[in-house]
Amino acid sequence: MSTLFLRTLRDDPADAEVSSHKLLVRAGYIRRAAPGIYTWLPLGLRVFRKIEDVVRREMDAIGAQEILLPALLPREPYETSGRWTEYGDNLFRLADRKGNDMLLGPTHEELFTQLVKAEYSSYKDLPVILYQIQTKYRDEERPRAGLLRGREFVMKDSYSFDTTDEGLAQSYALHRAAYQRIFDRLGVQYVIVAATSGAMGGSASEEFLAECEVGEDTFVRCVESGYAANVEAVVTPVPASLPIDGLPAVSVHETGATPTIATLVDWANGALEGAVTAADTLKNILVKIRQPGGDWAITAIGIPGDREVDFKRLEASVEPAEVELLTDADFAANPALVRGYIGPKGVQEAGFTYLADPRVVTGTRWITGADVPGQHVVDLVAGRDFTPDGVIEAAEVRAGDRSPDGAGVLESARGIEIGHIFQLGRKYADAFDLDVLGENGKPVRVTMGSYGLGVSRLVAVLAEQRHDDKGLVWPREVAPYDVHLVIANKDEAAVAGAHQLAADLDAAGLEVLFDERKASPGVKFKDAELLGMPTVVVVGRGWAEGTVEIRDRATGEATAVPIAAAREQILAAVRG
Amino acid sequence: MSTLFLRTLRDDPADAEVSSHKLLVRAGYIRRAAPGIYTWLPLGLRVFRKIEDVVRREMDAIGAQEILLPALLPREPYETSGRWTEYGDNLFRLADRKGNDMLLGPTHEELFTQLVKAEYSSYKDLPVILYQIQTKYRDEERPRAGLLRGREFVMKDSYSFDTTDEGLAQSYALHRAAYQRIFDRLGVQYVIVAATSGAMGGSASEEFLAECEVGEDTFVRCVESGYAANVEAVVTPVPASLPIDGLPAVSVHETGATPTIATLVDWANGALEGAVTAADTLKNILVKIRQPGGDWAITAIGIPGDREVDFKRLEASVEPAEVELLTDADFAANPALVRGYIGPKGVQEAGFTYLADPRVVTGTRWITGADVPGQHVVDLVAGRDFTPDGVIEAAEVRAGDRSPDGAGVLESARGIEIGHIFQLGRKYADAFDLDVLGENGKPVRVTMGSYGLGVSRLVAVLAEQRHDDKGLVWPREVAPYDVHLVIANKDEAAVAGAHQLAADLDAAGLEVLFDERKASPGVKFKDAELLGMPTVVVVGRGWAEGTVEIRDRATGEATAVPIAAAREQILAAVRG
Repeated sequence: MSTLFLRTLRDDPADAEVSSHKLLVRAGYIRRAAPGIYTWLPLGLRVFRKIEDVVRREMDAIGAQEILLPALLPREPYETSGRWTEYGDNLFRLADRKGNDMLLGPTHEELFTQLVKAEYSSYKDLPVILYQIQTKYRDEERPRAGLLRGREFVMKDSYSFDTTDEGLAQSYALHRAAYQRIFDRLGVQYVIVAATSGAMGGSASEEFLAECEVGEDTFVRCVESGYAANVEAVVTPVPASLPIDGLPAVSVHETGATPTIATLVDWANGALEGAVTAADTLKNILVKIRQPGGDWAITAIGIPGDREVDFKRLEASVEPAEVELLTDADFAANPALVRGYIGPKGVQEAGFTYLADPRVVTGTRWITGADVPGQHVVDLVAGRDFTPDGVIEAAEVRAGDRSPDGAGVLESARGIEIGHIFQLGRKYADAFDLDVLGENGKPVRVTMGSYGLGVSRLVAVLAEQRHDDKGLVWPREVAPYDVHLVIANKDEAAVAGAHQLAADLDAAGLEVLFDERKASPGVKFKDAELLGMPTVVVVGRGWAEGTVEIRDRATGEATAVPIAAAREQILAAVRG
Repeated sequence: MSTLFLRTLRDDPADAEVSSHKLLVRAGYIRRAAPGIYTWLPLGLRVFRKIEDVVRREMDAIGAQEILLPALLPREPYETSGRWTEYGDNLFRLADRKGNDMLLGPTHEELFTQLVKAEYSSYKDLPVILYQIQTKYRDEERPRAGLLRGREFVMKDSYSFDTTDEGLAQSYALHRAAYQRIFDRLGVQYVIVAATSGAMGGSASEEFLAECEVGEDTFVRCVESGYAANVEAVVTPVPASLPIDGLPAVSVHETGATPTIATLVDWANGALEGAVTAADTLKNILVKIRQPGGDWAITAIGIPGDREVDFKRLEASVEPAEVELLTDADFAANPALVRGYIGPKGVQEAGFTYLADPRVVTGTRWITGADVPGQHVVDLVAGRDFTPDGVIEAAEVRAGDRSPDGAGVLESARGIEIGHIFQLGRKYADAFDLDVLGENGKPVRVTMGSYGLGVSRLVAVLAEQRHDDKGLVWPREVAPYDVHLVIANKDEAAVAGAHQLAADLDAAGLEVLFDERKASPGVKFKDAELLGMPTVVVVGRGWAEGTVEIRDRATGEATAVPIAAAREQILAAVRG
């Protein structure tokens, strides 16, 4: 450590909010070079390489073949797929000296598709799984939390190519199992959640989320069944239809100035019999939706009045279309839409689409707008008085909601996305005409999977899940060194003994971080706790009595062992 | 090989001119993704990683510490050093979503300087050597020859930080020795040449050039002494001055239309006594030179008429200033400069600078322009009739020129730059105020070295130096696999025996490329030659007689060995 390029810091960096960011900087693992862009110092690089190595071995074990594509890419393939535009401001774009448009790759579906198309031509060539471990770029609007959301980062991305849906399902299953082995080996606490597709298009998809309070992703799970899903992916359980016979007829009421659900509920509790809650009202939100290449079309979305629209869920539901709230100008241009008093009837009569929450089943009764200022209708019955044009998942998911599998209720938690596996299907094969000659001599369109895993992000995830108030606590599999050996005794024999022990451990194949600095024991112990090697060995005061101390960083347990037995005991501690 | 992501090609790629490029593409090691930008396929990536590994081990062995900086960098540090502008069109520049200027790093002096300044503060912290193996970017005007001159490539770049010149010399010497070990282990044929500084500024500098006819760098060497240098770095031996006494007086002659050296020599051989050659004339070339931040200044350069100006040598001589030839407009604006008839006198009388070749020593006699159209002077004696304002290295270096060390004559050769070591001195420390506290408590300015090594380029260099007309011939240290085992016998027992042999070799720790494809022996042998593993093992016709064949790819030697001895013989061949 007297020559290691390392300076630990006493204070948290000013821009750090989460523990992993603070500790990785304080312990000298990383340094910020620009917003969302980091330098790996020696200790950080060692953790990073160990994670990379685990990922590589497990990918190789499922027969995936490693290649390496460039990060600086031409525009054309991304133009073909549509992502040159779709990525928006998240894409780093540049022009070369000849004025050719280029980009820094955020993910490489296009290039892998082109590559397989160029090399392979027969069904006999498939299946194939190709992967790379590579630096990627995304111009995040708000880079944050150190390595957790960076603009330059390293991912393992792999792509599977199959001729059949069953083959794709098999490639997907191989990845799912490999990811479980990787995260288990690394000691990450994670959950697999059903996911939507993001910007990728396609069908089956799951995310691996590291459980973490500072995570950006909210997910829900059912303790009873183990069901877990990204909120965008939650499918609302549809209640049974109710009988319509015998329900009171719809009635129109002057409700005064009641443009909000709260004011409407107040009115209803004064004017109607029985207690009325927001859940009895039908809230109608007006949006406009634009399919790729199409025009904006106005649509109303009806959800129970006790819920908000979750815009992310709405976006996921209409994808790949875009969606926006109606503007003042839009309302002004469509006087049939009476703001604050909109009902399904007015929407449909004006020629617009009306989509309803899955809970709005036949036989449900609602208080909602009468399409006249100051008026609402009561006892508007779905399936009798109005029929939605379709169903949409747009309402928020809440803790306590019923689990889609019917096994219980959902609870909410937060996580950090560390992996994403995804049955892309034929989206990219269609874009690039990726066919192979089938067994019958006719072309077969290839079906693809895409599988991401955040290698650099895992360094921060492990730091986030494994630390205490004194510093980092690395799992053995990824710790920069196996053992942190501290000299805390100025006696010549103790110093010589420590050097000998370091040499012995090194010879036994251990990676030893050796603190032979001329600093006080207090400073050295603090650094050892901050740096977080799993086993700390102290050659200290006990030397005179013939012992060295072995400390377990995770448990804090310290054991004095005889000098003669030290080597074996340390080996035992490290190798478990 | 039945599942390896590999398709060999029969034909050379259309854009390939040099053998390494043709063969690496044909053998399925690399694919072009964009001009100067390549994808590594499985075999290519294996070679690349093995080279990387050798480089890493030898760097670690000199105590250098590995870190990893980002490739996407902010503008500011490069603005501070001046390189944001100096790099010109070679730099990939871009703006992020907030409009901040960024660049893709071509080399990282600025960032390493800032990093050491941020972490270190005392002379006790030094010396330190830091390195990274990282993807770099240069927007080459003419990317060519596959990996030899790419726009995205991988370099090992290291930087040394010392407090004294002696320390810097020591860090430089460590690198020089490490580079020799690296290139020796990789089996590269190379030469170390004295070099100029390129765009870097600084003092002592050497290049490691792989000897190669297709190389872009011309260098000269003296067989007698071993002296070798980049042509830009050759210092012309200065001849002894000659006595002026007794030389004929200068005379002016009407020479008619003689604006070129050839026409002037023709005139002289008709009009003067004795044989005159171009070497007796003094050619005066007019250029303009601009120091950084300054204005263009006209300068004449006088060189013996039998030589051309070497613009690269001229550029290296005036660096960091820029230099351009005078334009028609410049001549029009300066009527005192009589094009085709310029002499030193006219230049200096017009107030411009006159620099001369080192051969223009006192007492040399010249035929040169008289600054009047159609007139030249004869017997113009340096040191008597004119005195240059200075000396400049701008004339071409030619095979047969005297070696600067006086040991013999120079011969010319071509090479590919694979390494560059460079005593930067305090240029970057000055730009970033990099001081440490010295032993006496006063700040000491740090002195730096910068050391580059082309990792991805070495793949192509080895392919270029090690191939024949049938394909690649890898040295064992970097071959993708130790052994290429070919089944060339359909007999069931032979096939089973080959599988067993492959398993045995694998168990013995060899990396085996196993060709169990259903292709003809001819196709398989051609592929084995093209792919270039050092040892090829054939389970073929000899199996019935109880033998397998071991072929040495480099020598072409083939030996039939008994099946029972095959494993041991192959191990012996691989392990030497």
